[in-house]
Amino acid sequence: MRHLTRFADLGADGARRLIERAEAFKGGQLPDALRGRILILLFLAPSLRTRVSFQVAMARAGGSAIVLEAGGGIWPLETREGIVMDQDRVEHIEEALGTLSRYGDALAVRVFAELESDEMDLADRFLNQIREKSGIPVISMESAAEHPCQGLADAMTILEHHPDPRALPVLLRWVPHVKPLPKAVPNSFLLTAAAFGCQITVSAPHGFELPASLVGAARMLAVAKGGTVTESADPDCGSDGSKVLYLKSWGPAGHPRATPVAGCHAHWRIGSDWLGQMPEDALLLHCLPLRRNVEIEESALQNARCRIFDQAENRIYVQQAALEWLFGAQA
Amino acid sequence: MRHLTRFADLGADGARRLIERAEAFKGGQLPDALRGRILILLFLAPSLRTRVSFQVAMARAGGSAIVLEAGGGIWPLETREGIVMDQDRVEHIEEALGTLSRYGDALAVRVFAELESDEMDLADRFLNQIREKSGIPVISMESAAEHPCQGLADAMTILEHHPDPRALPVLLRWVPHVKPLPKAVPNSFLLTAAAFGCQITVSAPHGFELPASLVGAARMLAVAKGGTVTESADPDCGSDGSKVLYLKSWGPAGHPRATPVAGCHAHWRIGSDWLGQMPEDALLLHCLPLRRNVEIEESALQNARCRIFDQAENRIYVQQAALEWLFGAQA
Amino acid sequence: MRHLTRFADLGADGARRLIERAEAFKGGQLPDALRGRILILLFLAPSLRTRVSFQVAMARAGGSAIVLEAGGGIWPLETREGIVMDQDRVEHIEEALGTLSRYGDALAVRVFAELESDEMDLADRFLNQIREKSGIPVISMESAAEHPCQGLADAMTILEHHPDPRALPVLLRWVPHVKPLPKAVPNSFLLTAAAFGCQITVSAPHGFELPASLVGAARMLAVAKGGTVTESADPDCGSDGSKVLYLKSWGPAGHPRATPVAGCHAHWRIGSDWLGQMPEDALLLHCLPLRRNVEIEESALQNARCRIFDQAENRIYVQQAALEWLFGAQA
Repeated sequence: MRHLTRFADLGADGARRLIERAEAFKGGQLPDALRGRILILLFLAPSLRTRVSFQVAMARAGGSAIVLEAGGGIWPLETREGIVMDQDRVEHIEEALGTLSRYGDALAVRVFAELESDEMDLADRFLNQIREKSGIPVISMESAAEHPCQGLADAMTILEHHPDPRALPVLLRWVPHVKPLPKAVPNSFLLTAAAFGCQITVSAPHGFELPASLVGAARMLAVAKGGTVTESADPDCGSDGSKVLYLKSWGPAGHPRATPVAGCHAHWRIGSDWLGQMPEDALLLHCLPLRRNVEIEESALQNARCRIFDQAENRIYVQQAALEWLFGAQA
Repeated sequence: MRHLTRFADLGADGARRLIERAEAFKGGQLPDALRGRILILLFLAPSLRTRVSFQVAMARAGGSAIVLEAGGGIWPLETREGIVMDQDRVEHIEEALGTLSRYGDALAVRVFAELESDEMDLADRFLNQIREKSGIPVISMESAAEHPCQGLADAMTILEHHPDPRALPVLLRWVPHVKPLPKAVPNSFLLTAAAFGCQITVSAPHGFELPASLVGAARMLAVAKGGTVTESADPDCGSDGSKVLYLKSWGPAGHPRATPVAGCHAHWRIGSDWLGQMPEDALLLHCLPLRRNVEIEESALQNARCRIFDQAENRIYVQQAALEWLFGAQA
Repeated sequence: MRHLTRFADLGADGARRLIERAEAFKGGQLPDALRGRILILLFLAPSLRTRVSFQVAMARAGGSAIVLEAGGGIWPLETREGIVMDQDRVEHIEEALGTLSRYGDALAVRVFAELESDEMDLADRFLNQIREKSGIPVISMESAAEHPCQGLADAMTILEHHPDPRALPVLLRWVPHVKPLPKAVPNSFLLTAAAFGCQITVSAPHGFELPASLVGAARMLAVAKGGTVTESADPDCGSDGSKVLYLKSWGPAGHPRATPVAGCHAHWRIGSDWLGQMPEDALLLHCLPLRRNVEIEESALQNARCRIFDQAENRIYVQQAALEWLFGAQA
């Protein structure tokens, strides 16, 4: 049984094939494999884009999506083994998954990082528990460690402009925020762009480095395709030559929740002047939602380089391709 | 791109054509233009009839509806320009709309009146901002100023009994309530009935007049079709000759929120005896929900003149017609 | 117009025919009668299995389900007659039902027991009010008195192993819990198993007897098919010969809410050793959700006898059959 909860489930070749299918769907093809299928969306953390894009992915292809939101009509689930369930949690996740596995054709799950430590978040214990106990394919809608569908939509957006992105200068650039955010999105972007052989710089203030093990894994993927992954702590790094500027905030390295971040490194905010130094055909990407005038100046969003809605739209097509792959219709 | 957020989007002739299509759909035709389409329903205020009737309108025609409820799994949206988003609102409505415009074929929106002033509510700033920023057709599910689909369903209900309603005596009659309600429903009823040439009396206590600019616009519509719009402050006005009695509460004129209304003008409540004076073929209308024994005596709802469920049902068909028109399938 | 809110709506022969249809649907047939139909799900109490299984039942058959959850975007409903509605309830259930009856093809409703008294719960006043006022078929998703779809799914699970369950030794066995639970599930299981002629023992501590009137009705059903219904207060009763072990907690007899139950009769918990005494081909059933290590030892759920997910899955098919019957496609 296939699952898609981490980049490694696809690998570089799988990711490329999946994006090719996504491009066909964007071009007007419909994925037959989704017709009449039922996808259960289990949100243990809130969502706008992800929820709607999955619902749209299924509806357009003649399938159905059933949305379950924790707190919204479903019970809080117990996840521990061996516990005496005499408190407020009325159902164990194992029984919930056993049931849902009989009801849906695949299960899409969103769980958020706990931000206690990078190590724990990368271990993705909760999602892996779901993956192990589920009787149907599991697709991640973002977990503590990765957000693979976002990474695929991001790569698809780059490929629309650069069909051969090998050695393309890409800057994954930290921006300020009011709270420590999970690293799932930058992790997935880094892994996916690396697998396409981009020449990636990750730029973030000291103390905000992405986990070394994740950067190492991305570097191996990049090297195999003629790309590179380097790191920088210079806020101006990459402003003059990057063809892709991926903006994203994330929490401090190590123990993200332990350090206050509001107001911290505010000079890392991206302004219109910063964008103005970039090549005219550069792409400005952000996974959304974004905090205007905290992460980026509002005016910069009007810049012709801004492709944030293409990214959002591409979620539909990569998710259709991912579901097609999960349902086994494509090798 | 077409929108339907106010009566003026259709005009008198457009409203008539749209209701003719609605009658065809009630008669068993299905609107092909809705098949395979995705309507996103964005509720920034709660709903029962509106939500279900839009979902049914799409489902019966082979389309899909995706429901988004503020607070229910989606984030509170920032609506101000130029703000530093460092507080609790995590996404700007412009990014949310940019995204949803890539996901749906049309956007249905409900926003409520702020009741600070009639002038502000008629300006409908928030809905107009959505309309301006949306990349897909917008249909109102009630805004601060109007509730056009309700007005169309109301007119359709009258037309079912009076195919030529020119000079038909219609009473739009205020009733008491426990709190100041928005004026969107009476505004839309008045505009729509006027556009069909009815002879309308608006009856409400002193201090509860509908906005003069709105009444003036309705009067111009009425006159063009041989109708009239007059106002009265007599609670017994129209009990003997009206062929349509539209009951609705609304807040005080000017600054609705500023004046307490609970218990106010309780003698304006409609009783069974009041109804008994009306013509036997008169129609009793109310948009629902209604407060039994506050607005109207419970027993009056059993009266054969009562057509409130026809109104509710007709919402389905006028909304199908409105969506067909938005999708451009009808001239 | 047909309704399905209690076992008596079907009777023994109706239940058998309905399960035969359910078996056909599980075998791959689709119920044509559901295609294009709209089922409105009205939850006045929360749900996981029931909600998803009804959505799946409709979606697989080409119909739609519209979910309404009290508190989640719909208003609290007034249910009393003759009340002056000047408090927080903004709509009367009669108007809500009148409206929904114009929107859906059938109405599925979940209301929970008030647990004031067995007598009141068995009277099922609220659900009967809905049934009486609805203009479309009503199907229960569990009420104060019964949970007929659960009972049918349970019987179907037994019939999968014992096509002729007459005189089959069945134990309906009380287990401990942290709070007094409704009796709808044991009531429905008892009635349905009795109607198939099983030889049923209901085993519960003194003070936890099921209502005498319900047990009497079940006994009459059983006797007509060659079965029996007996009661026991011995926690070891039935461990050696029962072919079906149905575990379920329920509240004290008489006035369930009046007696604290947490920690009460903890030795009635089912352990692995208890299961080990049962025949190898015995079936362990539970309607879920369950409290691990309170009702039953966690390890017992791994036992090959455990059929809880079959029960959950069968909900889909009996509900498709029930809806087909409600829509009148089957005699």
